[in-house]
Amino acid sequence: MNPAAVTQELLTAAELETRLRAVGEERYHHRHPFHQLMHEGSLGRGQLQAWALNRYYYQSIIPIKDAIILSRSDDSAFRRAWRRRIVDHDGDGTRPGGIEKWITLAQATGLDRERVMSTREILPAVRYAVDAYLHLVSRRSFLEAVASSLTEMFSRDLISLRVDRLRQHYPWLSDGLTYFDARLTQAPEDAKFALAWVTRRAGTRAEQELAIAALRAKCDILWAQLDSLYFSYVAPGWPPLGAFVPQLETMTL
Amino acid sequence: MNPAAVTQELLTAAELETRLRAVGEERYHHRHPFHQLMHEGSLGRGQLQAWALNRYYYQSIIPIKDAIILSRSDDSAFRRAWRRRIVDHDGDGTRPGGIEKWITLAQATGLDRERVMSTREILPAVRYAVDAYLHLVSRRSFLEAVASSLTEMFSRDLISLRVDRLRQHYPWLSDGLTYFDARLTQAPEDAKFALAWVTRRAGTRAEQELAIAALRAKCDILWAQLDSLYFSYVAPGWPPLGAFVPQLETMTL
Repeated sequence: MNPAAVTQELLTAAELETRLRAVGEERYHHRHPFHQLMHEGSLGRGQLQAWALNRYYYQSIIPIKDAIILSRSDDSAFRRAWRRRIVDHDGDGTRPGGIEKWITLAQATGLDRERVMSTREILPAVRYAVDAYLHLVSRRSFLEAVASSLTEMFSRDLISLRVDRLRQHYPWLSDGLTYFDARLTQAPEDAKFALAWVTRRAGTRAEQELAIAALRAKCDILWAQLDSLYFSYVAPGWPPLGAFVPQLETMTL
Repeated sequence: MNPAAVTQELLTAAELETRLRAVGEERYHHRHPFHQLMHEGSLGRGQLQAWALNRYYYQSIIPIKDAIILSRSDDSAFRRAWRRRIVDHDGDGTRPGGIEKWITLAQATGLDRERVMSTREILPAVRYAVDAYLHLVSRRSFLEAVASSLTEMFSRDLISLRVDRLRQHYPWLSDGLTYFDARLTQAPEDAKFALAWVTRRAGTRAEQELAIAALRAKCDILWAQLDSLYFSYVAPGWPPLGAFVPQLETMTL
């Protein structure tokens, strides 16, 4: 946060949205080289396995993260709106939720369900980044906890591109992509609610800057996961001891 | 932890020490390629700056970590023994402690004190790994919190080698190396106390396995910091936005 900002004028809603979108343009993980390799079809099956296996840990904590946010709200209208996120990821007992769909995607890459769900082989750095998200929503102000979800403002474009490119370059993955179908509508709706709430709730310029900084912190959390995947599975290609090791023949297609 | 271990026999003190030393042999960060580059003199000044600046964050939380451990003990003899660690790092008001000496090292690489102490430009992944250490000592059992300090069993050899090699390859750094001089005696004494305490306190095989796993977790925390430094400042050389960027002419010697 810019220390001078506390003495500055309140941003209008449009100005705040512009600032938030600039964070995404600059720092959201659509720019990360690991995603760029994926979208141009340069990742091998083993690298996609590493991605699916590691990102499972992120997916698995989403409802926990949302339950923490829920637990910090004293507004039943807010809680009702936010509750849907938990259902989206945990499912409703009849239709599979996002976590189950992510397991389906990991299975489509050729991994066993149990192996993925155990999280035994994820990169320590991915675990730390994901846990940092839980700490953010637990410990920072409620405004910052909610604002950190605003990366969903940027996910629709990335997911649209990803689904197209995965189908094109990795047709054997196609049956595993249902996770993304649902996210194409869920994420923008969730982002719309959260943006409106943050805009209303951030009543001072200092609070607006805190919200912007929280979004930046969340972008860092997503980015750091891909840095670690790139380091371990692309170049130099050094997974730490105990982490997932692709079979050699599946590293490249 | 090996799930079968809970039904296995208690290790003798010697067997436990052998198991702990095996963890260090396999996973301690003396094996990390970033350190290997440093020790062969292949890092440039900018890369040493990145190392000193990032590792400052780790150094800065050591007394916090030790205060958390202190706060979890109900044994005044333990607390007295452990208290020395805090003094070693924070200093006693007359002689500089480890944190101050680390700043001196960072200054010897050419960085400003304020820039280092702000931790503004550290890698997010370094922050997450270091924070994971704080979470470990806060949340896991007290036995695991203490056992995680046992990496000090391995630090003497690494520090001896490092000081020799830094003097040889980077003579302009020599005035900044007093941090390591003190650690050559402090770390082994601290490790001896902690090893004896863990050996006495781990009364079941399951507890012994937890202590071993805690040491492994700590090795992961040290290793992940160097992975991130390597990724951002060696290869491919992509620091995330906002992180420290060496001046081009100082990246290599």
